[in-house]
Amino acid sequence: MVDISRGSALGISGASELFQLLRDGAPRTRASLAQTTGLARSTIAARVDELMRLGLVTPVADAASTGGRPPSQFALNPAARIVLAADLGASHATIAVTDLAGTVLASRSEPMDIARGPETVLGWMVEAGLALVAELGRDRKELVAIGIGVPGPVEHSTGRPVNPPIMPGWDRFDVPGWVQQHLEVPVLVDNDVNIMALGERALAWPNVEHLVFVKVATGIGSGVISGGLLQRGAQGIAGDIGHVRVARGADVPCHCGNRGCLEALASGPAIARALREQGVDVQSGSDVVELVKRGDIDAIQAVRQAGRDIGEVLTACVSLVNPSVIAIGGSMARAGEHLIAGVREVVYTRSMPLATEHLAIVQSAAAANAAVLGASMLAIHHVLSPEGIDALAAR
Amino acid sequence: MVDISRGSALGISGASELFQLLRDGAPRTRASLAQTTGLARSTIAARVDELMRLGLVTPVADAASTGGRPPSQFALNPAARIVLAADLGASHATIAVTDLAGTVLASRSEPMDIARGPETVLGWMVEAGLALVAELGRDRKELVAIGIGVPGPVEHSTGRPVNPPIMPGWDRFDVPGWVQQHLEVPVLVDNDVNIMALGERALAWPNVEHLVFVKVATGIGSGVISGGLLQRGAQGIAGDIGHVRVARGADVPCHCGNRGCLEALASGPAIARALREQGVDVQSGSDVVELVKRGDIDAIQAVRQAGRDIGEVLTACVSLVNPSVIAIGGSMARAGEHLIAGVREVVYTRSMPLATEHLAIVQSAAAANAAVLGASMLAIHHVLSPEGIDALAAR
Repeated sequence: MVDISRGSALGISGASELFQLLRDGAPRTRASLAQTTGLARSTIAARVDELMRLGLVTPVADAASTGGRPPSQFALNPAARIVLAADLGASHATIAVTDLAGTVLASRSEPMDIARGPETVLGWMVEAGLALVAELGRDRKELVAIGIGVPGPVEHSTGRPVNPPIMPGWDRFDVPGWVQQHLEVPVLVDNDVNIMALGERALAWPNVEHLVFVKVATGIGSGVISGGLLQRGAQGIAGDIGHVRVARGADVPCHCGNRGCLEALASGPAIARALREQGVDVQSGSDVVELVKRGDIDAIQAVRQAGRDIGEVLTACVSLVNPSVIAIGGSMARAGEHLIAGVREVVYTRSMPLATEHLAIVQSAAAANAAVLGASMLAIHHVLSPEGIDALAAR
Repeated sequence: MVDISRGSALGISGASELFQLLRDGAPRTRASLAQTTGLARSTIAARVDELMRLGLVTPVADAASTGGRPPSQFALNPAARIVLAADLGASHATIAVTDLAGTVLASRSEPMDIARGPETVLGWMVEAGLALVAELGRDRKELVAIGIGVPGPVEHSTGRPVNPPIMPGWDRFDVPGWVQQHLEVPVLVDNDVNIMALGERALAWPNVEHLVFVKVATGIGSGVISGGLLQRGAQGIAGDIGHVRVARGADVPCHCGNRGCLEALASGPAIARALREQGVDVQSGSDVVELVKRGDIDAIQAVRQAGRDIGEVLTACVSLVNPSVIAIGGSMARAGEHLIAGVREVVYTRSMPLATEHLAIVQSAAAANAAVLGASMLAIHHVLSPEGIDALAAR
């Protein structure tokens, strides 16, 4: 529960609650806010003044005057503050500065092995992030939060990775605690596929409440948004579909120790391996994507079959989660419609009509930017919440 | 967002927000509430008085005196109001009166074909419900909400069934509108398996945030609670796992028109059919349960295999939802540990260690009462919410 009483003690709660109406960015008048909330005009005026003093709200030009003196409109001012958004991948790291609308103002990417451990990777992240803030000529005090995506399960409440298979040295590491020694702002940490789901939704499906984002790359995972909320599950591994069994692959061994896992059949390396067994000269998922783009029939068929395998698992997902959008991203999604076609073929054949009547299965619109955008959303959601606004006011 | 400002206009909001701390039923003192909220003692006193005036809060005896005059404790008074809870099944209907803790005060069950249509079934429900209230000697004004479970998908926001396959005449029927012609209280409607999940959680797992309830009976379905919230999905059919394909059943036709569906292999009628094909004399799922209880090896093996089939689908569920509890209920769960053993066998073999490390797979504790208990929870959650308390105060 939002602790209203404590906010009231700070004298800002009313304004931070009012701000929740304004955070969608749509312009409003004091009169319309008074009508929506039932609050006295004088109360609204005082709270809007408080938000303007904080710079979070700014006057905007009226879209259409209705004659006479136009009413004064105002809206969220996305430029008021900045956040850092970090996408720490297995072999590559990106850090960006965004405004409060998630618009990227500056970013930097570097090859970075996550196995170099948390101090090295997070140290680079903090240093590069602060350098970007300086290059933009922004005051460090304008920086109000950082969102971080990592390639493994995260206990979201503490920001600690939990048994991450490809992140040696990170297990239970206190990411927020370490980062806050260098940046005195809230630190939000989540799994990379989860933040990709947030990013995809923010960019392409802002009004969709039920969305599943599937990343198909070296591994396969998904991020599930239900009822507008990211689902993390009891151990922070909800959506971890890479090791669900696919019927076709009963005798295919997986690095997890089981057989027939989706990841062992439909990931980039798995498709490349299947093609090599047919005598095709490919080493990696990227090679497969290149072949598909050149129209190679064997590669196209292999990618389509991978789509069917993914579709088999997503059929269960459609029944369990009942999403209205499934977005397919990750490096293998660059193979284009062939992958999606395989997914659609199985999901639309195997699901109940009511579940697919309004279901869109599409390629990720955010593509390579999904993770950074999602990390910025993680930070921005926190900053613009009632607690976040109260904290800004108290700074 | 909770509209705090409108509540304030009614002068009750502060008390309804304070009540959110008390709704768990634990006794508290004014001093502890002041400490938790940071509100002035005088404000706490006034709000507690308001809740006592409404009868929602009542003084309770102190558990342990620390010497001297004991501090005055008070807690939620579950007897303050009553709700109706209805479980409308395919061929059977139950209506109960419960208090605000979900304790059943009176109930009535009757054979009732849901296909007789909404006016007939809901008419019986209203009449029987009011008769129970009268028999209990309670004033009709004490009745503050009704929760209803139906055997089909429901658009939760409007309470209308949507394309329910076994409910002719109910498609898009305005259940709340019809009921409110006879009972002027909030009407909450949901799918029967969803309310069973609510009931199971309330009875056996009140502190579990991620729980999946699986009903195995004539059909197979599940209700998914994630992050403490019931997940309904885009069309209200989240958890509808009966038609996910199971590898073993590729050539088994299902009444949905597909082949190999879980329901075609592991439901009560499907197990009975498989046994008949082996020459065993069984007509129904109940017959199978009876045979299992008598120790019949063929029946035990068939039930265990059904458990494995269900486990295959639940493995995907474990990966997607990452629950900490899977509870198996429905009439076939009366076959006991044999069904659960099959589920466990596959889920623990096939899932990633982190996902099953703290996963309990258990028989439903609420059993036959899950649905009525869940329907009462649906009503009580609404009544005890800030909006619900405000509405009570305004009556």
